[in-house]
Amino acid sequence: MSQPLQGFFYPRTVTGQSSLLPPPPWFYSGDLLTVEYRTDPEAVAALLPEPLTPAEDDPGAVALIWADWQSCGADRRELLDPVRSQYKEAFVVVRCSFEGTTYSRCVYIWVDKDFAMLRGIHQGYPKKLGSIHMTRSHPMTEGAPALAPGGRFGATIAAADRRLAEAVVTLREPSDSNGFVNGHPMAHHRWLPAIDGVGDAHVELIRSGGRSATIGATFTADVDHLALFDSPWEELSALPVREVIGGYYRQVGVVWDGGATLWRKP
Amino acid sequence: MSQPLQGFFYPRTVTGQSSLLPPPPWFYSGDLLTVEYRTDPEAVAALLPEPLTPAEDDPGAVALIWADWQSCGADRRELLDPVRSQYKEAFVVVRCSFEGTTYSRCVYIWVDKDFAMLRGIHQGYPKKLGSIHMTRSHPMTEGAPALAPGGRFGATIAAADRRLAEAVVTLREPSDSNGFVNGHPMAHHRWLPAIDGVGDAHVELIRSGGRSATIGATFTADVDHLALFDSPWEELSALPVREVIGGYYRQVGVVWDGGATLWRKP
Amino acid sequence: MSQPLQGFFYPRTVTGQSSLLPPPPWFYSGDLLTVEYRTDPEAVAALLPEPLTPAEDDPGAVALIWADWQSCGADRRELLDPVRSQYKEAFVVVRCSFEGTTYSRCVYIWVDKDFAMLRGIHQGYPKKLGSIHMTRSHPMTEGAPALAPGGRFGATIAAADRRLAEAVVTLREPSDSNGFVNGHPMAHHRWLPAIDGVGDAHVELIRSGGRSATIGATFTADVDHLALFDSPWEELSALPVREVIGGYYRQVGVVWDGGATLWRKP
Amino acid sequence: MSQPLQGFFYPRTVTGQSSLLPPPPWFYSGDLLTVEYRTDPEAVAALLPEPLTPAEDDPGAVALIWADWQSCGADRRELLDPVRSQYKEAFVVVRCSFEGTTYSRCVYIWVDKDFAMLRGIHQGYPKKLGSIHMTRSHPMTEGAPALAPGGRFGATIAAADRRLAEAVVTLREPSDSNGFVNGHPMAHHRWLPAIDGVGDAHVELIRSGGRSATIGATFTADVDHLALFDSPWEELSALPVREVIGGYYRQVGVVWDGGATLWRKP
Repeated sequence: MSQPLQGFFYPRTVTGQSSLLPPPPWFYSGDLLTVEYRTDPEAVAALLPEPLTPAEDDPGAVALIWADWQSCGADRRELLDPVRSQYKEAFVVVRCSFEGTTYSRCVYIWVDKDFAMLRGIHQGYPKKLGSIHMTRSHPMTEGAPALAPGGRFGATIAAADRRLAEAVVTLREPSDSNGFVNGHPMAHHRWLPAIDGVGDAHVELIRSGGRSATIGATFTADVDHLALFDSPWEELSALPVREVIGGYYRQVGVVWDGGATLWRKP
Repeated sequence: MSQPLQGFFYPRTVTGQSSLLPPPPWFYSGDLLTVEYRTDPEAVAALLPEPLTPAEDDPGAVALIWADWQSCGADRRELLDPVRSQYKEAFVVVRCSFEGTTYSRCVYIWVDKDFAMLRGIHQGYPKKLGSIHMTRSHPMTEGAPALAPGGRFGATIAAADRRLAEAVVTLREPSDSNGFVNGHPMAHHRWLPAIDGVGDAHVELIRSGGRSATIGATFTADVDHLALFDSPWEELSALPVREVIGGYYRQVGVVWDGGATLWRKP
Repeated sequence: MSQPLQGFFYPRTVTGQSSLLPPPPWFYSGDLLTVEYRTDPEAVAALLPEPLTPAEDDPGAVALIWADWQSCGADRRELLDPVRSQYKEAFVVVRCSFEGTTYSRCVYIWVDKDFAMLRGIHQGYPKKLGSIHMTRSHPMTEGAPALAPGGRFGATIAAADRRLAEAVVTLREPSDSNGFVNGHPMAHHRWLPAIDGVGDAHVELIRSGGRSATIGATFTADVDHLALFDSPWEELSALPVREVIGGYYRQVGVVWDGGATLWRKP
Repeated sequence: MSQPLQGFFYPRTVTGQSSLLPPPPWFYSGDLLTVEYRTDPEAVAALLPEPLTPAEDDPGAVALIWADWQSCGADRRELLDPVRSQYKEAFVVVRCSFEGTTYSRCVYIWVDKDFAMLRGIHQGYPKKLGSIHMTRSHPMTEGAPALAPGGRFGATIAAADRRLAEAVVTLREPSDSNGFVNGHPMAHHRWLPAIDGVGDAHVELIRSGGRSATIGATFTADVDHLALFDSPWEELSALPVREVIGGYYRQVGVVWDGGATLWRKP
C-alpha cells in the first residue's frame, strides 16, 4: 500500500531527509539595505491583480531592498553546512489594499539559492535566480566600511547576465525606522497554473509576516546613486525612479512561521 | 480597478514580459544519457504516495538520466539569448501503477537554471539546483568522443557542494530502444503546502508527456562505472544499485504542452 | 633534502596529480562563432606594447570570437569527468607586426573555468572569468537551429554581473574561410610583475599556435546584431564597431603544444 | 610607435582601467577560521621544493584556514561594486626553513573569484577555483551563532563538484593567538613554465607578508569535526589528520604591499 510521505515540499520521502525545505518555522539573521522611492502610481497599480487595490496613501511608493541572509530550520543543521544556509536576495516591494487594510507586496525578487526559490513558491514571492551583492561592514575597516555614520555601501542585482539595478548609500544617523513601504504584513498571490494550460488550478491570496523579529543596528542613509536598467526578460525599469524618498540599513533577526488565507478565487 | 495580469507563472504583469516561463508549448532539443539498474523494490515502493502503487513488472527498476538541453517557448526568443535556453539536468525515474496503468515517475531531479526549476513546480518534478555534467560528442575528436560505437561518455551530479552520482558508459551499437523505465507517461504529484502549515492547500496527481518527440541517433551502451554517494541532504543512495540493466545514449527533440489531472485528494 | 616536484603549473607536488594543468599537448574540440569588424586603427594600436607595431594591412580589423570547448590532456581523463573538460570563452583578437611578420593577438578574453584561466597565464592570454553563452545547433531542431544555412545563433558575454557584448548571426553558406583576423600565429606577452612592485620580473613575447587542427563544417554568416556595452571594469567598448566585416561559424579540433620565445625585454 | 601600457597585470591597456588587478597595496577585511593539526612530517616535506627544507620544530604541523574576505585597491572603488570585492578562500599552510629562518607556506588553496586567483599568480599561491563556505556570526542570533564562547561555526571546501574538506568548531574563549603555523612570513615559489615546455622560464622564491594588520576579536575553538576527502584532482587527503592541535577564529584587517625575492634558480 502507499506510504505516508514526509517532507514539507519537494521532494517528499518516508524520512523527509532530502526535502529541499524543512517545515516552518524558519529562522533568519541578516542585513537589509533599503532604498525607497516614488514611481508613477499607475505603474504600481498595474501590478495589483484581483482582489487588490492600490494603497490610498502614497500609492507610487516603492522599496528596493537587498538582503544578505543566513537561515535555517528548527534543528539549525543548515548553519553548520553554510552552503545550505547563506543566500542573498533583492526584492521590490509596493503597497496595496485589501478589505480596507494596507499590505506590503513583493512584485519582483531575485535570490541565489534553490531553497530560497522554493520558499518563494510557498510564500507567494515571484522568485527568480539572480546574482545579488551588497557591501559588508566589518570591525576592521581596511577593506570594509564601518557600520556607522559615514559608512558607504554598494548594492547590485543581475539576472540572465545583465545588471538590473545598482545603488550606493552612505549611512547618516541611527534610526528607529527602516522605511514604511515594507512595514506591513505581506499580501501575496499563490498561483499554480492548471496542468492543461487553461487558467489556474490554485489561486489564493495569503497574508504573511514574521512571527517575531529582533531589531538591531538601524541607520538612515543618503542615497548617492540609484539606477535601474532595462532587460528583455524583466520589467523593473517600468517602475522608474521619479523621486528618491530615502535609504536605510538594518540588522535583523526574523522567525517566519506561515500565514493565513485572505481570499480564494471564487 | 484590478488588472488582468499576464504571465504563465511568477511574476505576473500586464505584459507578461518578465514571467520566468512562457506559456506552453515548450520546445526542447538535447542529448540523454541513461543508465538503468535494479534496486530493492521496497525502496521504490517507499517513494510512491497515495494513490499510486508499485508497477507489477520489475518493480525495482530505476533509470538514472542525464540530459543536456536547449529549450524555448513558441516565439523561440530564448534561443538567441542562450543563457535563457541552455540547461542540464539529471533525474531518477521509477515506475508505478494507477488504476491499472503503468506510469513513469521522477522521484529526484537536479537542474541548473531557474526556469527549469519553476517548470518543475508546474509539472510536479521535485527539482533542486545542482551541478550536472555529461561528456559531449563532437565531429572533431581531438577533445571529444565520437557519437558512434566505442565513444566513451562520463556523467556526474553534484548538489550542495557534494558529488551525488557518477557514471561512465561506452556506446555499443545503434538501438531502437532508449530503455523502458522512462518510457511511460509521467505520473507526478503537484503539491502546494497550506500557508498555515497544516497539510496541503493543493494535492493533484497529473499525467504528462511530450506532445510530440523526434528521435535521433540512439545507442546502447556498456556501463563501465556507476556510483551513488551519500549526502546528508539527499536520499539517492537509498536506491542502491543491485544490478545494472544497461545504458543508452539518445538525441531527441520534444514538444511539451501540458497534461491532464488523474486524481485529486478527496 | 628537497623534492623534485611534478606538476606542469600550480600546485606542484611529487605526483603531479593535483596540478590544475597537465603538461601540454592539450587537445580541444569545439565550435567557434566569429564576428569580424573594423574599429578605429588607433584604438588597436593603443593595445600593442613594445616591440609590436600595427599590422600594415587593415590595422583596425577586430575579430570577436565565442568558443564552446571540450578539452583534455594526453591521458584524456578530463573527458570522463566533464566538469574538468568543458568550458566556454569569448575573446577579442587584433593583428600586429613583429620583425616584418603579421601576428594575431588576443587583447581581451573571458573564460568560465579555472584551468582555462591558468592556461592563459602560460600562453599570455589576458584571461578573466566571465559568463559566456552561444546557441548550440542540434540534429533535432525543436529547440535548436540546424547547423545549416538559415540557422540563427546568439552569443553573449558578461563579467562582473554586466553584459559586455552580444551578437546574433544567421548562417549563409558553406565556406573555406573562418575570417582573417585570427588566422595568424598568436604573438602574446607573458608578464610577471616584480614582487617588490617595481616593474616586471619577467617580460617575454611568445609565438604560439596549434600544433595541428582539424577543420569541420564552416559557414559564412550574416551579422544580424552586434553590440558592445560599457563597464567600469572593462575597455571592450573602446574598440567601437565602425563597420561589420562578416560572420563565421566553424567546428574545429585543435592540438596545442607550446610555442617559442620571440623576444625578451632587454 | 608602441604604447606604454598601464595595468598591474593582465590585461594591460593605456588607461589600466580593465586590468583585473589594481597595483598594490591591496586592502582586506575578513574573518578567519583556522584548524591546526599534525600530519606525517614526510608528507609535508614532500611538498617543499628546492631550496626549502622542513621546519625544525613540529615539521608535521598543518593549518587549514577558511577566510571570508572583502578587499580592494587604494581607490577602494571595488567596495561599492561588491561583486568585485567579496570572495572566500580556503588554504592549507605548512612551515618550512630557508637559510635558517622559518617561513609559512601555502601548499593548496581554493578561491571563488578571478581577481583572487590572479593575485595568487603574483604572490605564488597555487590557486584553483572552488566553492568555499563558512558560517557567519550575526548580532541577531535567530539564524546565526554569536561571535562569543559557545558559538558554533561550520566550514567547507569543494572543487570540481566534490567536497574536499569540512570542519565544525565551537568557540571557547578569547585568545591572543590565532595559531602558530600561519604565523611567519610566507615563502612561495613563483613559477612560469617555459613556453616550449622545457622546464621553467621563471623560478623565484619570494618572501611576502602583510605590510600591516589590525587584529580584532580572536577566540580559541574546540574542533568538533574535521574531515578531508579524496578527489582524483586533489592531494589534500595525502596530508591526513594524525592529531588535532586546535582551532581559532579571528577577525582581521590586512594591508598587503608586495614582498622580496629570497632566491632565484641558479
